[in-house]
Amino acid sequence: MEMTPIGTFYTDETDIPRHWTISRAKGRIEINPDFQKGLQDVVVGEQIVVLFCFHKSQTFTPDLLVQKPPHRERPFGVFSICSPRRPNPIGLSVLRVTDIRENVLDVENTDMMDQTPILDIKPHITGEK
Amino acid sequence: MEMTPIGTFYTDETDIPRHWTISRAKGRIEINPDFQKGLQDVVVGEQIVVLFCFHKSQTFTPDLLVQKPPHRERPFGVFSICSPRRPNPIGLSVLRVTDIRENVLDVENTDMMDQTPILDIKPHITGEK
Repeated sequence: MEMTPIGTFYTDETDIPRHWTISRAKGRIEINPDFQKGLQDVVVGEQIVVLFCFHKSQTFTPDLLVQKPPHRERPFGVFSICSPRRPNPIGLSVLRVTDIRENVLDVENTDMMDQTPILDIKPHITGEK
Repeated sequence: MEMTPIGTFYTDETDIPRHWTISRAKGRIEINPDFQKGLQDVVVGEQIVVLFCFHKSQTFTPDLLVQKPPHRERPFGVFSICSPRRPNPIGLSVLRVTDIRENVLDVENTDMMDQTPILDIKPHITGEK
């Protein structure tokens, strides 16, 4: 299954927060101009779901099926935590859009490293049942 | 960027709801036994974020950058809607776990087709800011 980045995330932050829920960090997503039209209807102020590639993570090995997150007291199954070391290195963050200029989205609450490849942007829909 | 399914979704439903937020449909996720240990700490009753592949969607073409969803009154940019026809065919659903048996998760609120390849499972973390 082949995926191609739709754009790239850039940030000047050097201390990357561990998770978007606790992040005040900022950066920008530059969408490949070929996909710019797809940004129509993304609006300043809204939250978006960003799927990205953990491009700096080591190759997944079976010993990583259970991992102890740095901030937790015991190991957890990989599908119960947000570790970047997972079978498919896809990350998910919910970011706030603070500005839009052509193919560039300024975003905050970021937890991604500089030059992270972006795979998709989706609306943030919460539908608690 | 190469992704490999970690498992497969199966359902007997024939009428697939358009979105998990309005779905009462059920099915099961069978995880590849190689990854079963990663399910540790997933618990019955919780919601999980499931990333999957829209395996039946047509190849993405530029005319799909703006699409009119069947239930909406006008076209929207693809990054503002949940259409299965997107640059990278990754879907996201938030499902309720109703039972767990070894490498099988029974889930409800499903909106995926039978035999959908599963790419990842993450905890459902809501952190409204």
